[in-house]
Amino acid sequence: MAHYALTPFEFQCLRLSLSLSEEKAAELLKCSVAELQQWELGQLAIPELAEKKLLEIDDIIEMQVLNTCDSIEAMFKKEPKRRLAFVVYPTQALYTQYNPEFLSSLPLTELYNTAAWRIKKECKLVLEVDIALVPLNVESYKAFREQAGLGESRESRAKWAASQL
Amino acid sequence: MAHYALTPFEFQCLRLSLSLSEEKAAELLKCSVAELQQWELGQLAIPELAEKKLLEIDDIIEMQVLNTCDSIEAMFKKEPKRRLAFVVYPTQALYTQYNPEFLSSLPLTELYNTAAWRIKKECKLVLEVDIALVPLNVESYKAFREQAGLGESRESRAKWAASQL
Repeated sequence: MAHYALTPFEFQCLRLSLSLSEEKAAELLKCSVAELQQWELGQLAIPELAEKKLLEIDDIIEMQVLNTCDSIEAMFKKEPKRRLAFVVYPTQALYTQYNPEFLSSLPLTELYNTAAWRIKKECKLVLEVDIALVPLNVESYKAFREQAGLGESRESRAKWAASQL
Repeated sequence: MAHYALTPFEFQCLRLSLSLSEEKAAELLKCSVAELQQWELGQLAIPELAEKKLLEIDDIIEMQVLNTCDSIEAMFKKEPKRRLAFVVYPTQALYTQYNPEFLSSLPLTELYNTAAWRIKKECKLVLEVDIALVPLNVESYKAFREQAGLGESRESRAKWAASQL
C-alpha cells in the first residue's frame, strides 16, 4: 500500500489493524509513546521510516496469510481434515525462544498473533477449514514430547497442538 | 466464522482485529472491563451472546467491505479516478450525529473506522484505487456547504471530502 504518505488518522488505523497497543508500537518503532501519540494527533510529522515499517509488516503478514492458506489447501488434497491446530505464543519470551527465525520480520508476538488470526479467518472463508489457535503450554508440550519420544521442533509443536483439539 | 466456540485467546484476537480497546469492547458488550479481562484470561466462561456479537460485527464489516468495493468498481467503469475520499468520524458524537442509520449494526465509531481501513486496503489491493480516509472537520464542511449552496447529506459530505484531497 506504500504509494503515498498515510495521514495521522490512517497511520493509527494501520497500527490498530495490526493489533498493536501504543506501547507495543512505540517499542517496535523505537520511539516514545508520547511521540507516537503526537504523530497520530497530527501534531508531529510521522517519520517516513515509521510508516514504512508498519506498512512492510502489514505486507509480510498478508504474504504469510496467502502462503499459509496455499500450503493448507495443497495439504488438504492429500489428507482432508476439517480442523487444524496452529500454535501461538502467549508471551514474548516464549515467542522469542521458539521462533528466532521470525524475529527479524515479525519481532513481536502480537504481530504473529495478528497473522495467525488472519490465517484463521481466511482459511474459514476460502477453504472452509477451522483452524484452532492453541497457545503453547510448555509443561503440557514437554510431557507430550517425553511420552512420544520427540525432540523439540516446529513439527513436534504442531503435533502437540493437534493433540489438544 | 461462527461454527464453534472461540477460545479465550481467539476471542481476544477477534476483539483486537476489530480495533476495540478493552474499554470500548466492554461498552459494546455491556459488561465491565474486569469481566472482559477474565473472559480473555480463561478465568470466566465467555457468554455466547458476547462471542456472537463480535462475530456478527466482523461479518457485517466484511460484507460492507465487499459491497463497497463492488460499488467502487462499478462506479469506476463510468468515471475512472485514481483517488477517492471516504469520510470518517473523529469522535463518537460526530459519528452518532451523522450516521443514525448505522448505529444498530456498527454502534461505535471505532468499528466504522475498522471497516473504512479494510475497504481502503481491499480497494488498493484489488482495484488499485487509493482511498483517502478524511476525518470530518465540521467547520470546514459547513463553510464548504455554504459556498456551494449544499444541504447536509451523505453526498455533500463525500463532495467535501473529495475537495480535501
